[in-house]
Amino acid sequence: MDFKDELNKYIEVINKELNKYIVTSECPENVLNESKRYSLLAGGKRLRPILLMTSYLLFREDVERCYKYAVAIEMVHTFSLIHDDLPGIDNDDYRRGKLTNHKKYNEATAILAGDSLLNEAYRIIISDIKSTDDTIEKNRKIDALYELSHGIDRMIAGEYVDTEYEGKEISGEYLEYMHENKTGALIKAPVKMGAILAGAEQGDINKLEEYAEKIGLAFQIKDDILSEIGDQEVLGKPVGNDRERGKCTYVTKYGLDNAKKMLDDITEEAINIIKNYNKNSEFLIELALYIKNRNK
Amino acid sequence: MDFKDELNKYIEVINKELNKYIVTSECPENVLNESKRYSLLAGGKRLRPILLMTSYLLFREDVERCYKYAVAIEMVHTFSLIHDDLPGIDNDDYRRGKLTNHKKYNEATAILAGDSLLNEAYRIIISDIKSTDDTIEKNRKIDALYELSHGIDRMIAGEYVDTEYEGKEISGEYLEYMHENKTGALIKAPVKMGAILAGAEQGDINKLEEYAEKIGLAFQIKDDILSEIGDQEVLGKPVGNDRERGKCTYVTKYGLDNAKKMLDDITEEAINIIKNYNKNSEFLIELALYIKNRNK
Repeated sequence: MDFKDELNKYIEVINKELNKYIVTSECPENVLNESKRYSLLAGGKRLRPILLMTSYLLFREDVERCYKYAVAIEMVHTFSLIHDDLPGIDNDDYRRGKLTNHKKYNEATAILAGDSLLNEAYRIIISDIKSTDDTIEKNRKIDALYELSHGIDRMIAGEYVDTEYEGKEISGEYLEYMHENKTGALIKAPVKMGAILAGAEQGDINKLEEYAEKIGLAFQIKDDILSEIGDQEVLGKPVGNDRERGKCTYVTKYGLDNAKKMLDDITEEAINIIKNYNKNSEFLIELALYIKNRNK
Repeated sequence: MDFKDELNKYIEVINKELNKYIVTSECPENVLNESKRYSLLAGGKRLRPILLMTSYLLFREDVERCYKYAVAIEMVHTFSLIHDDLPGIDNDDYRRGKLTNHKKYNEATAILAGDSLLNEAYRIIISDIKSTDDTIEKNRKIDALYELSHGIDRMIAGEYVDTEYEGKEISGEYLEYMHENKTGALIKAPVKMGAILAGAEQGDINKLEEYAEKIGLAFQIKDDILSEIGDQEVLGKPVGNDRERGKCTYVTKYGLDNAKKMLDDITEEAINIIKNYNKNSEFLIELALYIKNRNK
């Protein structure tokens, strides 16, 4: 398996699926739809939908059955980015090298575009559940939707803790709580959702949940490292902002070298959980390494 | 039936139910929860949950079975108010005579409190669906949830059109489109949800939908009239703002007298749809009159 080829194949599938939604037309709220599309299709690693799909693929092959859920999780992620970037929260002008939603459009549009994307994610899944006849399948979908709603709840709580403690010294415990929720929850949710949708056993779901927790933490530590020493051109956003704002991150709290060591350790732990899983786990192993080694 | 007594009884039930949710505790996001409670319990007419419950009561007596849905619709309504009040949208300092969420807390908290209330509404209902065994009941709940997600989608679109056209002259068609969505959608949704949850026939649901459309429009026209000539003390918010901001309303577009005439006509139409319905429709008739005659 060539990991990069696989990864790009998934990204292509997801972008194609995303492109089917929020078709703009001559309705009075057309610019709102445009702004939703703008942020949704502004690039991005598509990590969350990929996790959902590859988690599903550990147990079942008919991955197209979970496309709507992959689309929904990316919409939720996009909603959270649009709102985080707002003047009232992080006040960021650029995201992925492009103007943020409120800079490209305006603040009112960005608030409503975020709200609407969150709601659209639910609407797509609920509509899918509504049209599912098979009882077992229907129940799995409801369970997956519940995981999503729980993940979003935790993500918002984490984001709140992040804004609340900006510029304040916080304990390692709080830092972990913040990230477990802010970033971790929406990495854990798609992994669990994929497994639930595929009808995995509870024991397998638990194991995957552990893997997801590890890579979620790794993802955040890497983000903090890139925010400190990344390449602004490659990242598409300013570097060094966290320190300036007095944000408490793994780098500002533990120092760069310790943060790197933590990232190595946690990645190895994640790989150990998944490595003897089954033949399809190879991609998830490579994905853990990709999270560790990415430069954007 | 004494309408005011009935109304207050419903409000009491709803406030008691709402009070059970978002219990604050010693978690790091405690202030976020406080701010959600603050706005949720800041008074309000509780029109949407009352509509849901009384629509349900047309067909079934065990109204406590739809309490969670009544709570959810009020959370959605509260989310929409918090976001509408934000500096980036209406920039209002007061709501129901109390400081708006972002004035009482701060902007970041208000954005996240709104997001979180919207999500919480979904989570409560999804959790209820997840724990429902009976297939028929489960399907009704899913249908009701779909109505909710559709209503929210339309509400956000309407709010967008409202902000987009502020200060611009718009056609009567656009004004109607805006209100049908902005206010109407979240009045129609609970009426339909109540009927769906109670297992009403499609013909009955359609009739109720028509009633809801009429009172939704009446509600908006009355709001516009109150915004122009209401008592600031009673309303708990400034009067005359719409005109100052160049907002296009039924009053600014058609004049006060015409707006009053429209309100009378539409209320009569709503009552005609429901009046020979069944013995429980008396409350909904009185409610249409209450919407017309309210002073806040």
